[in-house]
Order: sequence, then structure tokens, then C-alpha cells
Amino acid sequence: MAVNLKPMDDANLSPIEGLKLSVAEAGIKYPGRKDVLVMHLDKGNTVAGVFTQNRFCAAPVQICQAHLDAGVQIRALVVNTGNANAGTGEQGRLDARAVCDAVAQELGCLSEQVLPFSTGVILEPLPADKIIQALPHRYTVGWAGAAEAIMTTDTVAKARSRSISLGGMPVAITGIAKGAGMIHPNMATLLGFIATDAAITRPILNQLVREVADVSFNCISIDGDTSTNDSFMLISTGKSAARLIDSDDLPEYSELKAALVALAIELAQAVVRDGEGATKFVTVTVEGGRSVAECKAVAYAIARSPLVKTAFFASDPNLGRLLCAIGYAGVHDLDVDRVALYLDDVLVACNGGRSPEYREEQGQQIMQKPEFSVRVLLNRGEAETRIWTCDFSYEYVRINADYRS
Amino acid sequence: MAVNLKPMDDANLSPIEGLKLSVAEAGIKYPGRKDVLVMHLDKGNTVAGVFTQNRFCAAPVQICQAHLDAGVQIRALVVNTGNANAGTGEQGRLDARAVCDAVAQELGCLSEQVLPFSTGVILEPLPADKIIQALPHRYTVGWAGAAEAIMTTDTVAKARSRSISLGGMPVAITGIAKGAGMIHPNMATLLGFIATDAAITRPILNQLVREVADVSFNCISIDGDTSTNDSFMLISTGKSAARLIDSDDLPEYSELKAALVALAIELAQAVVRDGEGATKFVTVTVEGGRSVAECKAVAYAIARSPLVKTAFFASDPNLGRLLCAIGYAGVHDLDVDRVALYLDDVLVACNGGRSPEYREEQGQQIMQKPEFSVRVLLNRGEAETRIWTCDFSYEYVRINADYRS
Repeated sequence: MAVNLKPMDDANLSPIEGLKLSVAEAGIKYPGRKDVLVMHLDKGNTVAGVFTQNRFCAAPVQICQAHLDAGVQIRALVVNTGNANAGTGEQGRLDARAVCDAVAQELGCLSEQVLPFSTGVILEPLPADKIIQALPHRYTVGWAGAAEAIMTTDTVAKARSRSISLGGMPVAITGIAKGAGMIHPNMATLLGFIATDAAITRPILNQLVREVADVSFNCISIDGDTSTNDSFMLISTGKSAARLIDSDDLPEYSELKAALVALAIELAQAVVRDGEGATKFVTVTVEGGRSVAECKAVAYAIARSPLVKTAFFASDPNLGRLLCAIGYAGVHDLDVDRVALYLDDVLVACNGGRSPEYREEQGQQIMQKPEFSVRVLLNRGEAETRIWTCDFSYEYVRINADYRS
Repeated sequence: MAVNLKPMDDANLSPIEGLKLSVAEAGIKYPGRKDVLVMHLDKGNTVAGVFTQNRFCAAPVQICQAHLDAGVQIRALVVNTGNANAGTGEQGRLDARAVCDAVAQELGCLSEQVLPFSTGVILEPLPADKIIQALPHRYTVGWAGAAEAIMTTDTVAKARSRSISLGGMPVAITGIAKGAGMIHPNMATLLGFIATDAAITRPILNQLVREVADVSFNCISIDGDTSTNDSFMLISTGKSAARLIDSDDLPEYSELKAALVALAIELAQAVVRDGEGATKFVTVTVEGGRSVAECKAVAYAIARSPLVKTAFFASDPNLGRLLCAIGYAGVHDLDVDRVALYLDDVLVACNGGRSPEYREEQGQQIMQKPEFSVRVLLNRGEAETRIWTCDFSYEYVRINADYRS
């Protein structure tokens, strides 16, 4: 069902020096499936992350943040699918630590030097023993295999690479992400890992991960549900010959950031294109707001509305539903007579009502495309935002009514 | 598809003295269907209403509020289905006024003494001429016929009556409501009209309509979309021999309010039971919050979550999705270790994880019922709230992907 989304194979994905990937089959939910990924980092790296704001954040999210806060050199990231280890209380934290312990013992490092990640069903105990028993049976993979190992309801593995030059030195960037449901950003969303061989100090990496997340993974919504396990990590192995980035004043900072943002947007869009049951990929732009916050409120009201999303699915230009969503987005002093609504480049509504030139055939034609844009002009300020979303289909209901069976 | 909802016939519905009902077939959307309702009020009545907070509120909502604010004696309410007259700008207001003019001319009153209401598709011009031409061809109906005339995607007409005694004098109350989609309250929701022959002053009726809406129509969500046309009206014809209610200190105030609340809750629940595609009727209670606002935030996070609603539909006790929704509801300092989650009387989660006694068969058994409750204890204060919602089914998608065809 994915909208214009093709898997990448390892021929298109750059290895990142200083980082080794391996997977195992722990049989967490299904037998014979790669469901554990270990990223093994050489010394000299820096790692930073942003995490879900869900108060029921998963045990691995809590442990991961604690290990990052400890300020030790990170040596490995371990990811499992099939179980979120969320809503699992104290036992969940013990289980996440047990998995870190096992990886640490093998690599000869401290448990705090291992970062854990989980994704899957919530409120079920993590079968930590299965993961620990499977760990010694890992085999090496490339990024395509790594992307595949973290899939849940995803139908396409998501990985992308870029090569850039910083100060004349080559730098590689490769990222993977997973996610297809329970996608609604709040600081970060889903599981995303982007690695680069550029050298970046930890404070700068901390800044970079937030700035990148805010314009990529924090700009998507599939179903309005903010996951308990969202984690987005930036990994710098420091093996490139390019100069160390220790300040955001350096030209390298801006150049690297631009490449990271472009890659993260591609991955975030891939998540939406592969949204559960998605048949349409829709860009929602809101311009002319008084603040980015109010632009986001309008954009997400549209992206979350089941009535708008089912109209997208039906290719039905029942565009009053868009006005309705704009109207209840919480911009309490919005003057609706100044709002303009476009579908791609076609003006649909203005002056509080339908544009006199608009013909329904135009709307129909645009909405039948697999990709189109909704553009809202609030005409009350200079702020703007852009997010990506998908439609709501029978298939979404089927997937989520059947997910655990 | 409606969950435990039967239509009422006129044998079970009390006429209200001083109020006459008539309907017409204007062919607004479908030929041969009653799509216009007129409520004709004798002099001596009082009318009060609450309206949608959607900024794209419909033209009739704007006109209705203006006419109520004019302080004149209301003589008629006119309701059409098939077209919302929303997102129609200045022309929409002219059309709504034209319909009021036509009713006023017939009844020999001012246009300001007529209140207009519309429901149906947004962003399409109101065919006011069709309504005006149909008005002379009205025929008298009872409340069952009135309820039927305001249906859109409703599958069951919604009407209820109660008889009470105030100070030894009989008082009758009858109400009708419509709504099955675009239901998410904000001050008022959908179209609801409750009439009583009790005599109530306008200031007291203004207070009463808000108090009743807040615990009934403002406590339901079907799809999280707040309509452009929500209007809830209380009509007092004053024909009962009971004493005039001119203060909320009178015992009659409390007695009447209790009956109005009970009736409004029945109507509001009927809307949810008949929710688009609904197969489950779910009561969500949140207790132990620091404020009603935070209890509502948690309750509506649950009621709006597509993942929770599809699990309801599937009778799948994938209850981690409930924890997830509680976690992202916006209670930023929520201590999840103190939260308890019940399904009916079964403790599902506590101490941040699954209750040791909980067995999935228990959850399954409860969720297979057409009606059950979700109860959340936040354990951080004394506030509580209770709302009603339904599930999310294939049928919801079908209805809303086909609605205009």
C-alpha cells in the first residue's frame, strides 16, 4: 500500500566507518524473523537523542536517557521489535537493563555504555531471556538488513544515504527508520537512527538532533497517536577526516545540518508513505500565522481529522471538512473571512466561503493523485509550517483491528 | 449498526403545549425526503441556546445568535438537513436570512423572531429557494416525525420525553437530536432541541442550557471533529401551571434541571450509540485528577485515539494503547506509577504496568460486549469526568468515504 516508496538495497547505502551492524532472530513475536539489531560503535564516537514526551514512555526510553545522561562513551545500541517494553513498570526497566548487561558483557564494556530500544506491543512483559539467548547468534548485515530488522507493521524497510564534502573532506551519512502506526510527533517520533562519520562534539550533537527532529520527524502524523517508544538518535563516529564540529558557527555545522535535515525528511516522509493503510501522501502547509504553534495547530487539526482523512481516501473533494478542521483548531480569534485554502495551486475557499472560480472537477482531479498538497493561508502573521500526513482507509482499520492476531 | 438504540414513536413522546411541529420536503439533497422542520411557538415562550466554538461556524449559527441577542420574542425555529450552509461566507448569511424572512412572512412576525438551523454538507451554497418554495407545503407531525426530519447520516431518529411534577403541577419535557458524525463537543454539539411547557425566565434559561449541555452533549465524541453547525436549544413555552422559574435558588430549578440533564444525556448517548459505523458504546470515566480539565484531556485522548477505537471495534484487549493515550494526553507531570486502569470492574494496569492478577481473557470477555466502561484513576486529586464514545469500524470509513455520493 505504500505511496511511491521503494526499498533501498545495500548498493545504495553507505557503510559508516566505526559502526558495525548485526542482527539476530529472537522469536519475540514471530519465529524466523530478524527482530534484534545491534549497532556496535568504535571508541571516539558521540551519540545524542530525542525521545517521546508520552508520560507512559517505555522502559528502554527511560534507561536510554539515563545512560546518555551518565556521560559515558556509548559502545552499542540494541533494538528489538515485537514488544515495546512499555507499560511494564519496574520489571520493564529490569528487563531493559538485563539486555544491556548481556550486550555489555559480550563487548567488554559497562551496561551504561549500551543504549536499548524496543518497539511493538505495549503492556506485555519483554521476553528478555529470548533476546539474551539470541544475541550470540548474530550475523553481520548492511544498512538494508538493519532497516529490515526494526520493522513492525512497516511494509517497506526505510533507509537512505547521502555523501557530502565538508571542508573538502568526504563525509557519509546513512539513516534508518521504522514506523507506520502510532505516529504523531512530540519532540521525536518512532525509531530513527542516523549515523555519520563526521566528528561532532556532544553538546553540538545534542543541539543538532533537536534541530533536525523538529523539521523532519516532528512534522508527520499518521493517526495522531504519540508512541510510548519514540526515539530519534544521531550517531557521530568521528572517523571522517573532516574537521571536528564543535560550534554551530562553523560552516561545516550548517552544511552537515542541511544534509542531515534532507535525509531525515526523506526518512520521515517514508514513514508517512508507508503509513498503515495509506493510499495518499499529503503535504499540509500553513502560512501567515502569528506563531509557528498556531500554524502547527491548524496543520495537525487537518492531519488528524478522520473526516478529512476519509475524504482523502475517497478522492472526494468534500473540502468543507478542511474548513471545519481549520475552524476548530483552537485559533480562537481566527478571522475566517481572511483564510484562503488551496489544493495544490487551485484556490478552493476565500472570504469565508467557496472561491467563485473553483470547480469541483478541479478538486477531484487533484485528490485522485497519490500525492498532493493542502495549503492554508491564515493572513494574520508571518509564521508558517509544513507537515506530512496520509489518508485513512479500510486497510487502516483492518491492520489495527488485526494487529495482534 | 446503532448500539442498543430503538426509535421512539409518538405514543411515547409528549406533545408540548404552545409548540407546533411541521415538516416539508424541499429536495435539498434527496427528493421525497422530509428535510425541513418548522417549530412554531406561541407567544410567552423563552428560548436559549449554546453553539459550536468552531471559527468556521455556519451562517445559520451566526444568524441564530444575532436573533437571540436581539432580545425579541422568538416565534419559530426552522431547520434544514442536506446542506450545512457553512463555509458559505456572506451569501450564506443572506440565504439564512431569506429563509427566516419567508417563515416570518407566513407567521406575521419579524425575521428576527425566527431562528435558523442547518446541517449537512459544508462549502456548498444553500438552496434557499427550494426551502422557501417548500415551506407552504408543510404538514403537521409529532415529535417522532420532527426527529426524523433532522436526520443526516443518523440511522435511528432520536427523541425522548419525560413527565415530572413541579410544585404539584405536571410538566412535560420532550427533546430531539441529530448527529452521527463530526461529533466532538465544544460548548455544544450537533443539533439538539429540548422543549418544556415549564415557564422559565430568559436569564435562567441561558444558565440552564449551559449547565445541561456541559454534562450531556459536551461529554461525547464520535470522531473528534467539532462541527461547524453545533446548536443546542432549550425552549420553554410557559404553558404549564407550575410556578415561573426565575431563580436558581428555587427547588423547581433543581428538579427541572435534573430532568433536563437526564433527558439530554439520553439524547447525547443516543447520538453516540448511532455513531457512524459504531458497534460499541463505551463510557470513559477519569477520576482523581487535579482538575476537570485534565480529566477531560485524558478521557478525550482515549476517545479520539484511532488505535484505541479500532481495538474496541476488534474486541481486542490491546490495552497498552489505552496507556499510550493516557500518556500523551498532555498531563505533563503525570506520575504513571500511580495510574490505575480498569475495564468495567477489572483492574488492568497499575504501578506503571499490567496488574499481576489481570488475565487477557477477562479483557476479551468485556470488550466483546456491545457496552462497557473504561475507568482511569489518576490518583492525584479529587476531580473527575465521564464521557461517552464509540469504536472505529470499516463502516465508519465506508460512510465517510461515500458520504456525498
